[in-house]
Amino acid sequence: MRIYDIIEKKTRHQELSREELQFFVDEFCSGRLPDYQASALIMAIFLNGMTDRETADLTAVMAASGDNIDLSEIQGIKVDKHSTGGVGDKTTLIIGPLVVACGGRMAKMSGRGLGTAGGTIDKLESIPGFNIALTKEEFIRNVNSIGMAVTGQTANVAPADKKIYALRDVTATVASVPLIASSVMSKKLASGADKLVLDVKMGSGAFIKDLDSARKLAEAMVAIGEHNGRETVAIVTNMDRPLGKKVGNLLEVQEAAETLAGNGPEDLTEVCLVLAAQMLAMAEKGSYEDCYRRAAQTIKDGSALAVFRRFIEAQGGNYDVIDHPERFYPRPCARELLADADGYVHILSAEDVGRASMMLGAGRETKDTPLDYTAGIVLDKTAGDAVAKGERICTLYALDEKKFPAALKVLSAAVCVRPTPPAAQPLILAKISRGG
Amino acid sequence: MRIYDIIEKKTRHQELSREELQFFVDEFCSGRLPDYQASALIMAIFLNGMTDRETADLTAVMAASGDNIDLSEIQGIKVDKHSTGGVGDKTTLIIGPLVVACGGRMAKMSGRGLGTAGGTIDKLESIPGFNIALTKEEFIRNVNSIGMAVTGQTANVAPADKKIYALRDVTATVASVPLIASSVMSKKLASGADKLVLDVKMGSGAFIKDLDSARKLAEAMVAIGEHNGRETVAIVTNMDRPLGKKVGNLLEVQEAAETLAGNGPEDLTEVCLVLAAQMLAMAEKGSYEDCYRRAAQTIKDGSALAVFRRFIEAQGGNYDVIDHPERFYPRPCARELLADADGYVHILSAEDVGRASMMLGAGRETKDTPLDYTAGIVLDKTAGDAVAKGERICTLYALDEKKFPAALKVLSAAVCVRPTPPAAQPLILAKISRGG
Repeated sequence: MRIYDIIEKKTRHQELSREELQFFVDEFCSGRLPDYQASALIMAIFLNGMTDRETADLTAVMAASGDNIDLSEIQGIKVDKHSTGGVGDKTTLIIGPLVVACGGRMAKMSGRGLGTAGGTIDKLESIPGFNIALTKEEFIRNVNSIGMAVTGQTANVAPADKKIYALRDVTATVASVPLIASSVMSKKLASGADKLVLDVKMGSGAFIKDLDSARKLAEAMVAIGEHNGRETVAIVTNMDRPLGKKVGNLLEVQEAAETLAGNGPEDLTEVCLVLAAQMLAMAEKGSYEDCYRRAAQTIKDGSALAVFRRFIEAQGGNYDVIDHPERFYPRPCARELLADADGYVHILSAEDVGRASMMLGAGRETKDTPLDYTAGIVLDKTAGDAVAKGERICTLYALDEKKFPAALKVLSAAVCVRPTPPAAQPLILAKISRGG
Repeated sequence: MRIYDIIEKKTRHQELSREELQFFVDEFCSGRLPDYQASALIMAIFLNGMTDRETADLTAVMAASGDNIDLSEIQGIKVDKHSTGGVGDKTTLIIGPLVVACGGRMAKMSGRGLGTAGGTIDKLESIPGFNIALTKEEFIRNVNSIGMAVTGQTANVAPADKKIYALRDVTATVASVPLIASSVMSKKLASGADKLVLDVKMGSGAFIKDLDSARKLAEAMVAIGEHNGRETVAIVTNMDRPLGKKVGNLLEVQEAAETLAGNGPEDLTEVCLVLAAQMLAMAEKGSYEDCYRRAAQTIKDGSALAVFRRFIEAQGGNYDVIDHPERFYPRPCARELLADADGYVHILSAEDVGRASMMLGAGRETKDTPLDYTAGIVLDKTAGDAVAKGERICTLYALDEKKFPAALKVLSAAVCVRPTPPAAQPLILAKISRGG
């Protein structure tokens, strides 16, 4: 087998066999395949596409390039959730407790954030003492005893994806549905879950900007899951506005607690209930409708919040930081953005809200940027809210006042006041599963 | 300017500016651009194509990446000829003397051959004493005094083409009309000629197999020439059969002399007259028809053959080798291929005739293969000739008898006898110039 022939085949729009995809991944990971041949093949795939079968096989081969996590010591059906990432997306912190309070499990490996979307691990690290590097034994013990655990990716999960992604990143081949789908799903296939719920974010705060692309990506990922024997359901959710009202690391942990206590923003609560109900239904805890009702009940009766607290404490975190951050962190500086007219709040770019938050210290511009855990943005008003001139719309937090002017500039272009309210937007846009 | 944006633009089917193409070539040649980004861009160009303007600009930029040969010391209009290469293509050796005998000039830089098509320089080197490494002064002096000179490429001509071609060769991106056209034309633009005649070979012995592709390539090269201010005419000629009856280095020099003496094969004589007449007409030596008649006359009156002899001797070659090769080389072994039935000769693959010749020692499989100058094939009969069972069709020559079995096997599959004659084939298939 020669890589030349494989590249040529793809330039001719022919379908690559599993053996050919395996050869490519093996040779590339071993260092025997030079980058310039890998990037030529990736560009040919980018431009000529892949069939569902090819995409599923590439994903399986990438998943098999590293460790396969064995979760068999965890009782019951393991349903994992994955979000394609968005601004203010703290759903993992809320869905886990909802699922566990209803009798399910959440054994989650998460990553750090880069750019405008924060990572779950970064958010959890804002809790003093929280251990994000559990051993495999601790991880499984916590899931079996408390019902949930979240750990950073320490295992060598899908190294082929890392290598391929690094090349895509510098050759303008990131925005490809089969390549994005295989990248996400290779890590999920290797992570040991039996079933998957995918939260595909769509809108100005996500990397997918339109419903058509979101549907295509969702369909591609569901097809990969099904081809590889993992029941997969994708839910396309709105990310034209930040999810919830708080953006930042500790701020989002606090908002998760508020939501579990029943005081969270409507949009965030609803998305979390939908995703939790889907996971519970797939874990065979009842019908979707029944699971949704039960999840909502765990908010009302306080049982979900109790799980959240147990989960944090089991991983060494000090729960007091949620109500008393000043005991652990210097109080950040605050700056307000005020309405410049009477009218209604419009959020023109969720991504720019994320960018402003990153500029304040809550996100990473490069892999090595240190984070300020208390930095971020609180949307005192959100899209559609009526405001009077001079009223506060947002509050910005940063450790260093010098960060305000640039962040305010970005934020005030992204959040503005207009005479008429914005159009209402559906929160849940589509649900994609086998057979549509 | 960032290469990432240039790649992305091409993936979106947008036209690259001259500045962007310049940036790509400059960065790649300087070593600042990694191969993996260059190969991604080349694959995007391969799959999405280039407009005539982009192709012309890329070619100009590649031409400018190295030395530009200055031929201004040569009097008159310099018309260069270039062939895309085929089996038995010794036209340069014949056209030069025809042109010069009619008052034109030929200042030619040529290359070595690789694979089944031999290079003009290799053929000339089969003449003992022939100097293929003229200084620039010798080269110009010879053209001005004798009318013609042929030298190897010693200058640093279009190094960008060499680098880009090396990458295309290993990434399955050779077979692209704009990339082939820019590769050929970059060297021609740098070589100092005022006008160009292109011999685009088409058929089983050329890398272009069909008329449609040949026309497209011809049109692309003419467009590049015109965009860059060089009048260019392309003539598509048949290469379904070897050109002439002799394939090999010294064998082809001998056939060139026979043709200039008026005893050459019809097909070879005709192609050379057509190309020479086109060059003379463009050098403003008269109408095409008039130039054709005068070129034919130089064969009849011996003046073309006299130029050939003067040219060889001016570059140090011993002309006696043509009539008395045994004085210079050990006599090669010979082996005959005989007709296995009564019928007509068919040449099924000109490329395989070239391959058999290469296997006998006349061509290079790799850059470092040494050549046997006397090795090769004589087609005693050619396509369409009637033969009786047992009659000789071809004679193979090699220094080492051990080379015969494998070469005979290839040759006897390529040249065969069938009961009915093959269809007649036109020799000149199309002529492409500005405005068609």
